Amino acid sequence: MNRKMVRTTIGQVMIVEAVLMVLPLIVALIYKEYSLLLPFIIPMTFLAVIGYLMSRKKIENMTIYARESFVIVALSWIVVSMFGALPFVLSGEIPSYVDALFEIVSGFTTTGASILTDVEAMSRSLLFWRSFSHWIGGMGVLVFLLALVPNAGNRSMNIMKAESPGPSVSKLVPKTKETAKILYTIYLGITVIEIILLLIAGMPLFDSILHTFGTVGTGGFGVKADSYGSYNAACQWITTIFMMLSGTNFTFFYYLIIKTYYKAFTMEEVRWYYGIFAAATIIITINILHMYSGVFESLTHAAFTVATAMTTTGYATTNFDLWPSFSKTIVVVLMFFGACAGSTGGGIKTSRLVIALKYCYYEVKKMLFPKTVNIVKMDGKAVEDSVIRGTNVFILLYCFIAIVSVIIISFDGFDMTSNFTAIISALSNIGPGLSMVGPAGNFSAYSNLSKLVITLDMLLGRLEIFPILLLMAPSNWKKSKKKR
Amino acid sequence: MNRKMVRTTIGQVMIVEAVLMVLPLIVALIYKEYSLLLPFIIPMTFLAVIGYLMSRKKIENMTIYARESFVIVALSWIVVSMFGALPFVLSGEIPSYVDALFEIVSGFTTTGASILTDVEAMSRSLLFWRSFSHWIGGMGVLVFLLALVPNAGNRSMNIMKAESPGPSVSKLVPKTKETAKILYTIYLGITVIEIILLLIAGMPLFDSILHTFGTVGTGGFGVKADSYGSYNAACQWITTIFMMLSGTNFTFFYYLIIKTYYKAFTMEEVRWYYGIFAAATIIITINILHMYSGVFESLTHAAFTVATAMTTTGYATTNFDLWPSFSKTIVVVLMFFGACAGSTGGGIKTSRLVIALKYCYYEVKKMLFPKTVNIVKMDGKAVEDSVIRGTNVFILLYCFIAIVSVIIISFDGFDMTSNFTAIISALSNIGPGLSMVGPAGNFSAYSNLSKLVITLDMLLGRLEIFPILLLMAPSNWKKSKKKR
Repeated sequence: MNRKMVRTTIGQVMIVEAVLMVLPLIVALIYKEYSLLLPFIIPMTFLAVIGYLMSRKKIENMTIYARESFVIVALSWIVVSMFGALPFVLSGEIPSYVDALFEIVSGFTTTGASILTDVEAMSRSLLFWRSFSHWIGGMGVLVFLLALVPNAGNRSMNIMKAESPGPSVSKLVPKTKETAKILYTIYLGITVIEIILLLIAGMPLFDSILHTFGTVGTGGFGVKADSYGSYNAACQWITTIFMMLSGTNFTFFYYLIIKTYYKAFTMEEVRWYYGIFAAATIIITINILHMYSGVFESLTHAAFTVATAMTTTGYATTNFDLWPSFSKTIVVVLMFFGACAGSTGGGIKTSRLVIALKYCYYEVKKMLFPKTVNIVKMDGKAVEDSVIRGTNVFILLYCFIAIVSVIIISFDGFDMTSNFTAIISALSNIGPGLSMVGPAGNFSAYSNLSKLVITLDMLLGRLEIFPILLLMAPSNWKKSKKKR
Repeated sequence: MNRKMVRTTIGQVMIVEAVLMVLPLIVALIYKEYSLLLPFIIPMTFLAVIGYLMSRKKIENMTIYARESFVIVALSWIVVSMFGALPFVLSGEIPSYVDALFEIVSGFTTTGASILTDVEAMSRSLLFWRSFSHWIGGMGVLVFLLALVPNAGNRSMNIMKAESPGPSVSKLVPKTKETAKILYTIYLGITVIEIILLLIAGMPLFDSILHTFGTVGTGGFGVKADSYGSYNAACQWITTIFMMLSGTNFTFFYYLIIKTYYKAFTMEEVRWYYGIFAAATIIITINILHMYSGVFESLTHAAFTVATAMTTTGYATTNFDLWPSFSKTIVVVLMFFGACAGSTGGGIKTSRLVIALKYCYYEVKKMLFPKTVNIVKMDGKAVEDSVIRGTNVFILLYCFIAIVSVIIISFDGFDMTSNFTAIISALSNIGPGLSMVGPAGNFSAYSNLSKLVITLDMLLGRLEIFPILLLMAPSNWKKSKKKR
């Protein structure tokens, strides 16, 4: 293992985090929250100093393999989370470190699950940092680094593959650095447009910025106890649209920008994604019609909730836990499926689902007619066997991890619906579950052990299991020592 | 498609069912339930006449492929169920045909889920038929046919593969007919021993026979409203042991009989199966200790419940829905996993689970060290690629079918825990679920549509998805027409 490379990259990530903390610091100054300056300055100092020491030396051997990438990504996310939790603890607003870690991991992984019982009581600068973490985590802190740091070498693509959601990352342009830049430009563009639209629709500036972070990162942290309930329909529709856009495979936007419209609109995953959205919205609108004052209100709530579930954002305009069983079941299933690969959304991902469905179809067909040769295709191209195997393993591991986690947290004695949906919610980076952890509830009642398990599941979900799992594999470290 | 072969075999199966109905008829005579003679004689007549007409002609071409086997198995089970439901309807004890079909499919598939609100009010002969269906379905009606009918030809192995639970059926001896005979002999032996032991332990003869059918078929239909609650500890322990034995891969017993003890006790699946049983029993015993009057009582309930869950039998000595969340979660997870392949139990099967776990392990390892060659092994032998693919597809399809079914039955408006566990219970052929369909509840409240969905899921679960799915595939029938 190329340990120098691992150390240097993590050092650079730490410096990036120190720089990013300048923003909440400015917010603290604007809102005159002077007691919050130190809680940001202390971790910033540590990040900057340690980061500098780690990344100071020049390294000759820039070659890294999949193994190093996984380790870099997993360790980066853990380090960033551990320091990112400090402002909450140092300010005393979340005294328990486990709680603070839960909250910031929920932020970086764009889960949006919270242990806060009263979000409106929190300082502005901390609220900003909390929501900003969605924005950072949405596209990925390492992709950010790749876009910025010069001389990234050939380490880039492996890292991007390890950090980005979905079964396969397509290089948009030959150079990885350029791909990362394009992605962040699109991301920034969507962010700015949403902030402006929300302002026009009448949302205050602070709320607009924070909700935009939560929307484009598909996170779900808000500033109000009732999430989106008290904003007007215009704000709700803008958010619905931007949640869906943020859950779209970003390759789609790239195709639009370079004006290859045909390629964009024939992307199979994107078609399925919007198709499922439309179908689910219509069905739920009809099913909940009797609960609201007309088609428009039902449609608004249905579209918002479907978007929030599919993109795994987690905002709520209404407590869908009170909806009919049928609609509620559809919402839960959509959460499980998730958004597109190559987007900021979580879940199993639409493309994995489509690949798995096609795979099943062809395997069953093969049983009937053993001589036929069937190849799973996406967008007209054959899906590589390694991707299919990866998809299978991912779904299987997802189930195994969910089962083990549910068993552990069931020790706290809460009901099965809460436990089960809490874990699915964490693994898919959704935010709310049902029952105790429903849209109107929170995760504060769980024990520290359970909170740590859920925190780990959020990381496993965001990094798509493998990096974290490989970090824990002892053989990873044993063999590397031999090779040094 | 060799349609003649399909028709003839189904005709033979119908005659077998007519013959098997003689037993409940005798019970009706013994208990002087004369009003129940006709409800059995009418379907018997139809079965015999139609069956004779269908299987009368000699067929020259005995060759069949996987496709025909799947069709034969799926159609046989549907036909047997449709006629098997008639006695309930004709007697008026279950007036609705949908309900009767639910009940008998639950019987044949060894699920044990019931729509009856008062089981103790039912006639003796119908109770007998209901439990006897577990015994017939446990080992399989076609395996029974293979063991009996001379001149089975080369059609046998494919059919046995299609009907038997588990990823792969091992031929015990070169001739399939002999394998089927050995299996039924073991099955009959276990049955007789359990009846005798239960009698000695003090259970009445009628109850002993019916509970033995339910145990060795891993079904779960009983004769009392409180299932096993009112029998003594000796009866409960005997049942625990025989549930576990019936959930064991029958190859194990064959090895014992031919005295190759080493092979028997190194069977990987069997080791996992009893290992999981022991671990779960100990953990639950400790967890529920405070609820009962001592270690022995806790152990009795824990062992019984773990066995009933793992083997997907569904008997209950206590309402485990009231247990602590932790124990309850373990029980539900065990239900999902199920018993051994090549046993009468349901669920995903221990061997599939072990294969899937090993597969995940090796695939993750391959990501770390791309050059290593890893092969999934069971019992020291490499698992064929087709078995691994089949396992993956099975688990994926299991999840997809579960999701679709839950969505459909959620239309009835019952809570998610009931809906979710009802479907898992049906697909795994367990019997009870939780909440409304828990050990103390039943399925009567669901609508006819939901009951049909659950009935279909029971069949899909028992026949392990593929035969029923292939029967529904339009291409199956299209292509066959061309080839005629």
